[in-house]
Amino acid sequence: MVNETQHSCSGSSSSRSDGGSSSGSESSKDNSRCSTPVLDADRHERLREKMRRRQDAGDKWFSLEFFPPRTANAAVNLISRFDRMGAGGPLFIDVTWHPAGDPGSDKETSSMIIANTAVNYCGLETILHMTCCNQTKDDITGHLQKAKRLGLKNIMALRGDPSGEEWEEEVDGFNHAVDLVKHIRNEFDDYFDICVAGYPKGHPEAESYEADLRHLKEKVFAGADFIITQLFFRPETFLKFMKDCQAIGITCPIIPGIFPIQGYHSLRQLVKLSKLEVPQEIKDVIEPIKDNDAAIRNYGVELAVSMCRELLDSGMVHGLHFYTLNREVATTEVLKRLGLWKEDPRRPLPWAVSAHPKRRVEDVRPIFWASRPKSYIYRTQEWDDFPNGRWGNSSSPAFGELKDYYLFYLKSKSPREELLKMWGEELTSEESVFEVFTCYITGEPNRNGYKVTCMPWNDDPLATETNLLKDQLEKVNRRGILTINSQPNINGKPSTDPIVGWGPSGGYVFQKAYLEFFTSSEIVTALLKVLKKYELRVNYHIVNVKGQNITNAPDLQPNAVTWGIFPGREIIQPTVVDPVSFLSWKDEAFALWIEQWAKLYEEESPSRMIIQFIHDNYYLVNLVDNDFPLENCLWQVVEDTFELLN
Amino acid sequence: MVNETQHSCSGSSSSRSDGGSSSGSESSKDNSRCSTPVLDADRHERLREKMRRRQDAGDKWFSLEFFPPRTANAAVNLISRFDRMGAGGPLFIDVTWHPAGDPGSDKETSSMIIANTAVNYCGLETILHMTCCNQTKDDITGHLQKAKRLGLKNIMALRGDPSGEEWEEEVDGFNHAVDLVKHIRNEFDDYFDICVAGYPKGHPEAESYEADLRHLKEKVFAGADFIITQLFFRPETFLKFMKDCQAIGITCPIIPGIFPIQGYHSLRQLVKLSKLEVPQEIKDVIEPIKDNDAAIRNYGVELAVSMCRELLDSGMVHGLHFYTLNREVATTEVLKRLGLWKEDPRRPLPWAVSAHPKRRVEDVRPIFWASRPKSYIYRTQEWDDFPNGRWGNSSSPAFGELKDYYLFYLKSKSPREELLKMWGEELTSEESVFEVFTCYITGEPNRNGYKVTCMPWNDDPLATETNLLKDQLEKVNRRGILTINSQPNINGKPSTDPIVGWGPSGGYVFQKAYLEFFTSSEIVTALLKVLKKYELRVNYHIVNVKGQNITNAPDLQPNAVTWGIFPGREIIQPTVVDPVSFLSWKDEAFALWIEQWAKLYEEESPSRMIIQFIHDNYYLVNLVDNDFPLENCLWQVVEDTFELLN
Repeated sequence: MVNETQHSCSGSSSSRSDGGSSSGSESSKDNSRCSTPVLDADRHERLREKMRRRQDAGDKWFSLEFFPPRTANAAVNLISRFDRMGAGGPLFIDVTWHPAGDPGSDKETSSMIIANTAVNYCGLETILHMTCCNQTKDDITGHLQKAKRLGLKNIMALRGDPSGEEWEEEVDGFNHAVDLVKHIRNEFDDYFDICVAGYPKGHPEAESYEADLRHLKEKVFAGADFIITQLFFRPETFLKFMKDCQAIGITCPIIPGIFPIQGYHSLRQLVKLSKLEVPQEIKDVIEPIKDNDAAIRNYGVELAVSMCRELLDSGMVHGLHFYTLNREVATTEVLKRLGLWKEDPRRPLPWAVSAHPKRRVEDVRPIFWASRPKSYIYRTQEWDDFPNGRWGNSSSPAFGELKDYYLFYLKSKSPREELLKMWGEELTSEESVFEVFTCYITGEPNRNGYKVTCMPWNDDPLATETNLLKDQLEKVNRRGILTINSQPNINGKPSTDPIVGWGPSGGYVFQKAYLEFFTSSEIVTALLKVLKKYELRVNYHIVNVKGQNITNAPDLQPNAVTWGIFPGREIIQPTVVDPVSFLSWKDEAFALWIEQWAKLYEEESPSRMIIQFIHDNYYLVNLVDNDFPLENCLWQVVEDTFELLN
Repeated sequence: MVNETQHSCSGSSSSRSDGGSSSGSESSKDNSRCSTPVLDADRHERLREKMRRRQDAGDKWFSLEFFPPRTANAAVNLISRFDRMGAGGPLFIDVTWHPAGDPGSDKETSSMIIANTAVNYCGLETILHMTCCNQTKDDITGHLQKAKRLGLKNIMALRGDPSGEEWEEEVDGFNHAVDLVKHIRNEFDDYFDICVAGYPKGHPEAESYEADLRHLKEKVFAGADFIITQLFFRPETFLKFMKDCQAIGITCPIIPGIFPIQGYHSLRQLVKLSKLEVPQEIKDVIEPIKDNDAAIRNYGVELAVSMCRELLDSGMVHGLHFYTLNREVATTEVLKRLGLWKEDPRRPLPWAVSAHPKRRVEDVRPIFWASRPKSYIYRTQEWDDFPNGRWGNSSSPAFGELKDYYLFYLKSKSPREELLKMWGEELTSEESVFEVFTCYITGEPNRNGYKVTCMPWNDDPLATETNLLKDQLEKVNRRGILTINSQPNINGKPSTDPIVGWGPSGGYVFQKAYLEFFTSSEIVTALLKVLKKYELRVNYHIVNVKGQNITNAPDLQPNAVTWGIFPGREIIQPTVVDPVSFLSWKDEAFALWIEQWAKLYEEESPSRMIIQFIHDNYYLVNLVDNDFPLENCLWQVVEDTFELLN
């Protein structure tokens, strides 16, 4: 066997054709830039390749459809839903296009911006719907260019609903989805993956089922990569449709659209819009319980599960597309029952990766934004390289200004009243601020009985990993070391460890202990004396709002604090303490005191003045214990500091 | 104290000005290329900065002067001497300029090429002498341009000895060293560090001692960075000279030239050339023992040591420059007695770094050239970046052809007769080749009583680190696994470990076990069966001379096999197993069978045919055990392979 001429690679050949062989044609700039060791092939694949690979591997998948929300608040909620439902592992999500809602605009509720947020801020592979009727070629090209600029790579090409009763085809206009498919391929070559709609019962306006199949074939032959179907009520409807498609030569993937019935009224409305008929056996069940939402949802889940099982068991279906109606419960339930919901504790990197094609190679971030990843993405959206210059030459990172703290994807999900309950209707002293931090760490209710589930620097409750440090964190927060970020040291745990693991299996992950906090200048003075004893072991950066900066870090070099060693790969070091970025983070971290906390109170009120005092006088400190194989010494450093103060 | 506006850095501020602040003016290409985390500041400093930093740190140093050899063989020996004496830690070496010897040519004995070799292949900071009298401006500019191109950064500017009895100054020509200093500064700005000569007794041709001091001041004010003096016999001569220099405003470093007397004749010749007078007290000792070389050398060492001690004790002298006359013993002895010879077991990286300014940022190499670093440097000399493209995108490395196996700095130091004694006057079978490999590993004499101290792939005896694997290596070589490169696994030893340590102190170093060998296709067939069991743990590349290539490495990605974690720094991964480079190395490794071994024998001779057979039919195999925290499994892999064969 060894004498055959050949070369085998365990990796998939498709990812190789994307990553490896293309390098010959890349510019030398591309060749010399820092590239990421490819940790997971699918970050480098286009959607159609992922679909193909999953199918070849016999791996079933699902996807989720959402529509753009009506209000900014609803947008904030939808983004959190993306994060939560993204955790189940959809292959992609798609966002519908509502011509009436200014879908291509920059409004926070537009289809374009919601899809942009899903890709860039939630790291989800996303398909943007786009309709073409009643629009000019220039409008459509403009939308597509914008989508491309924002990092969207997939378009669902639709005709859309003609406006007006008596719609007539325009000569040279976009009259059918196929016109849009052709336009995309003409203008953007192979850049986008294109999806088109299939109608298992035939399009209601088509002359016939057969004629509709021929239209579908036209769309595919014009360049569509796969098909998602309209909803249907019986599995045999889809299976017949699929066979009919294959019979006339449609070979691309066809994904059944699944609609879990969630309520009587939503079903009626959808049926009206789609001009479908609900089978009698379903009507018979639903009509008697039409006022019992829970009962209908349970029935809908049952029905969807059994239909999906039948589809999957047929061997012809590899993925399922869910019409969620922007709701979570029913779809999640169906997916869990089917065993498709996979909350994979393994992360490709310790932070959530963005799905923007520009960020494919991103493999290192400063630790400071660990709890504000969306802010980091926002502030680096103009970068061409990730990182912008190697951290080794870290004077290059230039972060975007963060002026608008109310960008909807950065906005706290909690309204003012709730924040006041958590952080105190009235602050009486710096110590009452210490209490808030302590309650956040412990999870205990504050003196008014409310749990503190978020902080200006952390939108979510304490991470599992941080929980490992809970007891120590509680102790130091009580005494005015106000922690906002920390990680324990790790000396070579398996990359599959459920709490600290990340990256492919078979590897080992490492961390240096890290602690970041605000504290008074009095404590800083003592701390600096203590740190002299730890000079060779602990690196520190201490800075106040004015930028006074005390550090023992050598020459602006970054300190790698999380890294992983994997079979057959270069070392990955996804998290660094970077002195240059720290100064940008410092501005953001101090501003959050004012923007998120102080402004909850009246101007000149004592509560506001307390926060303002902290903002003006406290220092932001970060500490790294370089001796990762030994016991974390940072708690001892803090202990020594308190002792010195007594 | 914390309220002061400031920032301290533990690193030296000089290195910062070189590495940090300059980045503002760097092109964006520079910013985005992979840069090395600065491991040791002095790789990034110019010579004058190093000198200044050592002086500020109260750190005494030495330097060594050599002249270019007469023959190619002598050049090979001089290069080995550079390697040996370089181990003692000279701040720099310098190479003299002999106008009669075509000093700027490409001959292997020219000053230019010897200096080039010292910088690029031996990694030594090097000063190239250059004389100017009787030369045209164009000639000199040409020499300087060539020196710059080769990576030389330091010039010793001299007048040289005018040829002809009646030398007259040329109008507009180069009549004095100061003309050369000015010319260098005019044409090359601040690129070169410039050194000039000082005469503690005054130049023999100068009108007076005072006039000569004024000439020296002129040279310094024209742009020289430091002074090296002519030899002298009494410490007070130098100390007076130094005070006189300072008195007239010469503030740059002045380095005393030390000449350890090594023999009667060499002393007489030098004295004649330099027109110096040997003090009576020295003559009195030497004359009676003039035929006893050893006695004279011992006296010379004593004399030099006592003079150097007096100079260093004066507090005015920070560095000593030795006129070695290309000999090792006396100078090394003096340096050891003075405590200046510092064989620092700590290496900045696991391989010897080159001193070429282009290679300053080089921080990763393929493991394959571990025993042939000069060949690696030669084959990558045309690269602009190191590595040429990130290994992560490793299809870019393009290695220079290695056609001339007799490049003097790659040439074996052993003559043909010696190689025949080591590798066998006559080979009778493949097994007799196995024996040669085994003797090299064990250090035992071969059947004819000769020790095998080098192999075509290893110019030197087994490395200390490899010695750790000696027993296992012996066993496998006996059976036809002909090892040429290997390293043990290391799971976090201190960076100061005397055998496997490298980099700054306070760090931890790691390695994956590596084994590289030639072996028959029969063994490869069995090996591949065994490797199936280790699929997730062991990465392999197996290739024959025709390029048939079998591997389980994912997508041409390199595998980091040596890395280090240091305080306040990014991860360093200086050694990788890179699949693309392996194919270039393969050509070299197979060619060495023929070029270095087969060609020792007559064409058509059985010995030659045996080597040719191995070259044509064997495979080159490399194995990496990815599970560095566990016991190295590669020996088990080999054991299993032999078992399968039985």
